[in-house]
Amino acid sequence: MTKITPVILCGGSGTRLWPRSRASFPKPFLPLVGHETLFEGTVARASDPAAFAPPIVVTGTAHLDHVERQLSGHEGAQVIVEPSARNTAAAIALAALRLPEDAVMLVCPSDHHIADSAAFASAAKAAAALAAEDWLVSFGIEAKTPETGFGYLHRGEAIGSGGFKVARFVEKPDLERAQEFLASGEYAWNGGIFAFRTGAFLKELGEHRPAILEAARAAVATGREEGARFHPDAEAFARIDSESVDYAVMENTSRAAMVPADMGWSDIGNWHALRDARAGDENGNRVSGRAELVDCRNVLVESDGPRVSVIGLEDVIVVVDGDEILVTTIAGAQLVGKLSGAVNQ
Amino acid sequence: MTKITPVILCGGSGTRLWPRSRASFPKPFLPLVGHETLFEGTVARASDPAAFAPPIVVTGTAHLDHVERQLSGHEGAQVIVEPSARNTAAAIALAALRLPEDAVMLVCPSDHHIADSAAFASAAKAAAALAAEDWLVSFGIEAKTPETGFGYLHRGEAIGSGGFKVARFVEKPDLERAQEFLASGEYAWNGGIFAFRTGAFLKELGEHRPAILEAARAAVATGREEGARFHPDAEAFARIDSESVDYAVMENTSRAAMVPADMGWSDIGNWHALRDARAGDENGNRVSGRAELVDCRNVLVESDGPRVSVIGLEDVIVVVDGDEILVTTIAGAQLVGKLSGAVNQ
Repeated sequence: MTKITPVILCGGSGTRLWPRSRASFPKPFLPLVGHETLFEGTVARASDPAAFAPPIVVTGTAHLDHVERQLSGHEGAQVIVEPSARNTAAAIALAALRLPEDAVMLVCPSDHHIADSAAFASAAKAAAALAAEDWLVSFGIEAKTPETGFGYLHRGEAIGSGGFKVARFVEKPDLERAQEFLASGEYAWNGGIFAFRTGAFLKELGEHRPAILEAARAAVATGREEGARFHPDAEAFARIDSESVDYAVMENTSRAAMVPADMGWSDIGNWHALRDARAGDENGNRVSGRAELVDCRNVLVESDGPRVSVIGLEDVIVVVDGDEILVTTIAGAQLVGKLSGAVNQ
Repeated sequence: MTKITPVILCGGSGTRLWPRSRASFPKPFLPLVGHETLFEGTVARASDPAAFAPPIVVTGTAHLDHVERQLSGHEGAQVIVEPSARNTAAAIALAALRLPEDAVMLVCPSDHHIADSAAFASAAKAAAALAAEDWLVSFGIEAKTPETGFGYLHRGEAIGSGGFKVARFVEKPDLERAQEFLASGEYAWNGGIFAFRTGAFLKELGEHRPAILEAARAAVATGREEGARFHPDAEAFARIDSESVDYAVMENTSRAAMVPADMGWSDIGNWHALRDARAGDENGNRVSGRAELVDCRNVLVESDGPRVSVIGLEDVIVVVDGDEILVTTIAGAQLVGKLSGAVNQ
């Protein structure tokens, strides 16, 4: 079987994990769970040379330094440097156009945490096998809670070994529908992880979004190599519509498939999710940095320097990062991105 | 009537308002409520030249710099520099021995907040009038809540205009007794504010603690002046038993009296008390320093630099002071003095 080429997408601004994550140092490049950064973990998960080719990373100039520093040691890795941000359809098209028609890409966001690497690898193989048969495959992440912040995949008929057609893509539901989805067992979270044969992906993109394909082709044709970097042509690239791969391709193709993945996945979408992704002590507290906790339960403390002393709190998050300090309830974590400090970075 | 001489006591270590209050910069010298420090407020309250003589401050070498800096502008103020800490009986004896027999002293701790200066002045005059008749007068601070952290005065028969004998001194009660005291209306908090004619005080001290009086006399007799400072003799002073004026004198004398004082008093004994002493905004929040509060009620934020963003909390205190950050519930405020940071200063 052909080796899978990881296509790792690094974008995003990261206001929801402010103040630890800043515009200049966003989520993928921080060691949020364990010692590895989320980006490093993403690369490492898809680095077994028996199954994977070296990765292609698609990022912008703003994060190029972070990417290259954290890629060091990964022989053969390439970086596509986007001259501007044009969402995932364009980013994936660039990578696809740099690969042979029969390569199988595994598209991975770089800002997720996956606790169970073996489950990831096994889902990746199943997805790649379906992709080789020209299915456009999403990872269907097993829903654990009635999340209203994710899109869902409705599972259709079984195909191949362990795969399914996608019966329907569902936008972020309200709580009631999310609860129905969870109870039914037929819905999975759409985590933005995909496997495509490049030829199949480009064919579907050309059918449903010919303008994106054409502009991406032009940007690649007139781009330039610079060592391991590839710079698409800025003018051509700027003409591309900014659209997600879900809207541009997945929701339009008749070849959408999914493989179930139960792998301890989290998008670390806010401080609540980050707390839950970390292992707690016997009181459920998670401490990173100097701290003393008295009569606390399920408290997350993260400090880059000062000692944090906490008394009597439960389900509270305290983050110290330079000249910014955040103290929030678990419920308040979803409002962090709207704080002045997060907005005016 | 003779002018009253304020005798201002500056001791204490201040772990309960850690980390804002530190061993090297304790509570009296911090602007905890409003712009004035507690010490400055204590001096200012007793500075009306129509009623008060210049103050005598009794302090240790550790806080001498703070005292002299914050006393500047108070013409005629004197400072007695204790070579070691020997509690309030000794401190008051030193001041008494430096004054004429017929002077009336008003003994004031320097780490209390009093919101109503006019009520203070009026209680001071009433106390001084009784002191001139050789009563040993405590301020009986109107009890507002069933505090278990204070001693109480049980009101006896009326004397003079608006004064009472003290029927009984009561040690810190348990909650049930504190509630009974509050309900009865016959008990007041003992806030450690006293008025004495020096001759009367020294006579009672000599009767009940002759050794303290004798050693204090020796320390003053062989002490030395240095500008506005007076240094008692260290060797003589070191021989003095460390005892509070309550134990040494007030609980033994038959001349104990009290004047009721309802003056917005707080000993600012912990962060809970400090929060309550400050005026809140329409949500009850109190902010000092840079902060953004979202969905918060009755939250106190005090920061010496970093911005503090707080979401969704109620009755929580956040203090940022250099390399120490404290986050506590109101109930937890009483445990602050036991934190590692507060203990190992």
